[in-house]
Amino acid sequence: MESVTRRDFVKNSVAAGAVVAAATTVTAAQAAAPADGTVKILAISCSPRQGKTTATALGVCLQAAREVGPRIETELIELAGLKINGSIAAGIPLAEGERDDFPTLVPKLADPKVRGIIIGTPVYFGNMSSLCRAFLERCIVLYQDKLALSNKVAGVVAVGGTRNGGQEVTIQSVQISLFCNEMILVGNGRPGPRHGATVWSGAEGGVLKDEIGMTTVKALGRRVAEVALRVANSER
Amino acid sequence: MESVTRRDFVKNSVAAGAVVAAATTVTAAQAAAPADGTVKILAISCSPRQGKTTATALGVCLQAAREVGPRIETELIELAGLKINGSIAAGIPLAEGERDDFPTLVPKLADPKVRGIIIGTPVYFGNMSSLCRAFLERCIVLYQDKLALSNKVAGVVAVGGTRNGGQEVTIQSVQISLFCNEMILVGNGRPGPRHGATVWSGAEGGVLKDEIGMTTVKALGRRVAEVALRVANSER
Amino acid sequence: MESVTRRDFVKNSVAAGAVVAAATTVTAAQAAAPADGTVKILAISCSPRQGKTTATALGVCLQAAREVGPRIETELIELAGLKINGSIAAGIPLAEGERDDFPTLVPKLADPKVRGIIIGTPVYFGNMSSLCRAFLERCIVLYQDKLALSNKVAGVVAVGGTRNGGQEVTIQSVQISLFCNEMILVGNGRPGPRHGATVWSGAEGGVLKDEIGMTTVKALGRRVAEVALRVANSER
Amino acid sequence: MESVTRRDFVKNSVAAGAVVAAATTVTAAQAAAPADGTVKILAISCSPRQGKTTATALGVCLQAAREVGPRIETELIELAGLKINGSIAAGIPLAEGERDDFPTLVPKLADPKVRGIIIGTPVYFGNMSSLCRAFLERCIVLYQDKLALSNKVAGVVAVGGTRNGGQEVTIQSVQISLFCNEMILVGNGRPGPRHGATVWSGAEGGVLKDEIGMTTVKALGRRVAEVALRVANSER
Repeated sequence: MESVTRRDFVKNSVAAGAVVAAATTVTAAQAAAPADGTVKILAISCSPRQGKTTATALGVCLQAAREVGPRIETELIELAGLKINGSIAAGIPLAEGERDDFPTLVPKLADPKVRGIIIGTPVYFGNMSSLCRAFLERCIVLYQDKLALSNKVAGVVAVGGTRNGGQEVTIQSVQISLFCNEMILVGNGRPGPRHGATVWSGAEGGVLKDEIGMTTVKALGRRVAEVALRVANSER
Repeated sequence: MESVTRRDFVKNSVAAGAVVAAATTVTAAQAAAPADGTVKILAISCSPRQGKTTATALGVCLQAAREVGPRIETELIELAGLKINGSIAAGIPLAEGERDDFPTLVPKLADPKVRGIIIGTPVYFGNMSSLCRAFLERCIVLYQDKLALSNKVAGVVAVGGTRNGGQEVTIQSVQISLFCNEMILVGNGRPGPRHGATVWSGAEGGVLKDEIGMTTVKALGRRVAEVALRVANSER
Repeated sequence: MESVTRRDFVKNSVAAGAVVAAATTVTAAQAAAPADGTVKILAISCSPRQGKTTATALGVCLQAAREVGPRIETELIELAGLKINGSIAAGIPLAEGERDDFPTLVPKLADPKVRGIIIGTPVYFGNMSSLCRAFLERCIVLYQDKLALSNKVAGVVAVGGTRNGGQEVTIQSVQISLFCNEMILVGNGRPGPRHGATVWSGAEGGVLKDEIGMTTVKALGRRVAEVALRVANSER
Repeated sequence: MESVTRRDFVKNSVAAGAVVAAATTVTAAQAAAPADGTVKILAISCSPRQGKTTATALGVCLQAAREVGPRIETELIELAGLKINGSIAAGIPLAEGERDDFPTLVPKLADPKVRGIIIGTPVYFGNMSSLCRAFLERCIVLYQDKLALSNKVAGVVAVGGTRNGGQEVTIQSVQISLFCNEMILVGNGRPGPRHGATVWSGAEGGVLKDEIGMTTVKALGRRVAEVALRVANSER
């Protein structure tokens, strides 16, 4: 069933030195069970632009997650400024002197306290940023380490410059990679449940004034937190 | 936020007599908590052809679900032969003497013991059957009854006549409706997790000989059962 | 390559009597070449509700198409009120006394003067109406008649009750069936080209007041007309 | 209608020095009309691995395109080894000494003789390569130059390591970006038309032994060539 290409994809990833080190860290982290009942929700901002609309939307999303209960802890990670080379996942080594920051993210993603991960991405030409795509590709390291993202709850926020600018398609495009990591997918919950949060950054006043979008963002944050709590509780 | 059209959609659905009766049943069913720890997984075969490839694939899927543990109970419902008129969901009344069978399904779907629902559909021209679409539309009755499908775990099986015949797109097209009902979505789990089970009915020997497809079908059955157990356990 | 299921799908469709008659009409219509240079654009409203938002949006779309040039002729067909039984495409015969209206549509769709077809559908739970799905399934009759829709230009309009309510996903779900008929797909053209027209019926004042949506609808009408003219001209 | 974010996206792209130079070339190239009737089809291999399955599949695709007629000329461009930084499209300048190869591609893409463009990508975790995504993002330069890709015919080839490994979703994810550039989209044509070519690289013997996949690849090559010829002829 496992195909040659996929096998190479995995094998080559392992071969890349920096990645192997990170993968080791994963296993170590998994061994340590969360003792205090903390449920952590990570948000990953996949915009190349730091502190802009995607990060802002994710901040609102995490705030709503925290309001679900005192056990919820959150962290926003911005990929802006990090070097994440997707091709490493396909076995292409880094060039001489090329920097790669993905390994620093691995322990954070694999942390067993992390029960929910929210991916936020700007929408360019109807789909996710290449930074988001590279990030997802590199998650092969977690995949190959006994599916380290398995059973974490996932949700997606898409921020587009036009009203119906590809947000919905982007959400589905990100979700399929999360399903490939055996994650548990939720959309934004009530009111008006949909498959993810859809923000319109071109609305007057910026994303925070996009009332409809912010409703979906908050509903997604709450939903990820609620289901993450359930999954955590199911193991007690 | 709630739009006029959506409001009409809901209101008109309620107005339809048969549906109101069914909805009442839902609420009653929800009041009764499952005492015995049984976790039920329903599979809905949305093929217009009874006992054919979609039903067969779902049978395998449910068998794999049952093997997850003794608490798992399953039921296969075939829509073939049932009259399910999608337009009722949009407020169009039945014609004089027209039959409609959806209300008989409502108590089964809303049953709180049902923790997982697997939708199986044949693929025609790259998308789900119109019977599947009508079924999903009519779930508005459950939506309007306090999101009666909320937190049930869902997975999708797509059976196509050609190898890459729209199975993947069909899965996504069904999933978006399930997200709209605040369900918890899973794909087929290991090995080779993906967003759902993809069957090729045109393979020699029929679907049961489609080894790759059957691997995804079993992996989906197990996955829905496992996550449904988790969600059930989280409430104990 | 052609699978058993697909073969049955086709064979069974042919078997249905009413359909055979219609298919014959197709071939006859194709023989007659358009002499006068007229390029006809059909719009199919797949809402179960007659004269409502989807039909209104398509009216605007066709108006924009006509403004492209004097050779453009348009017709709006509303499926509301018609009986279109999708299951016939899968070989399930009509019940005793059951009516089916699809055959009346076949000559209109197959007409060689028709160079463009615009599918409009309301969005329910993030996807097309079951009426739309049934319509697309029944196009198997045209498929089996030497791909009678081949090289016709196609575009999609999705009308949703919420702002990001599944319009985009619906467009893709319809498009895949059109690709299966070897059609030529276009989205809404400039300004702001996207993969189709996205209307928000919940905006205050109804769809005609949805300025952004109407911009996409007009841009789609123009685009279908322009490319349909090109395709027609290429044969002169 | 044009949103702030989109505006910035465009403006920032223009601001990047190397890009402005390339854009100028575009306009110059467009001025020169093709005199000899040549219709050129470009294939872009978006695999980070040179000469592997995606390039092989595209070779077969272009061969089929050439067989459509003597006016068809083809070229395969491999992105492997090129540096294409997607973030430039969002206005992030290159780091000191960082190389960027996209501008060298711009005149080739904008060449008015190029009537068809076939995008080929490997599938990783159910979606396109980040290299493919970065390439599509950078096409903003062509978008802003009077939609230089408008009316070029486009098709997509997806090469996945598992049988139903995301090829279909990948095709749709690429297509939406092509629609955003006002391109004319076709799928693989007869026999068995679908929305694009789907290759299974994990089949025994490699992609060339994937008979079903190769059938779709050839059908896509022919289809792009045929419709590209039509579009070219429509202007004579």
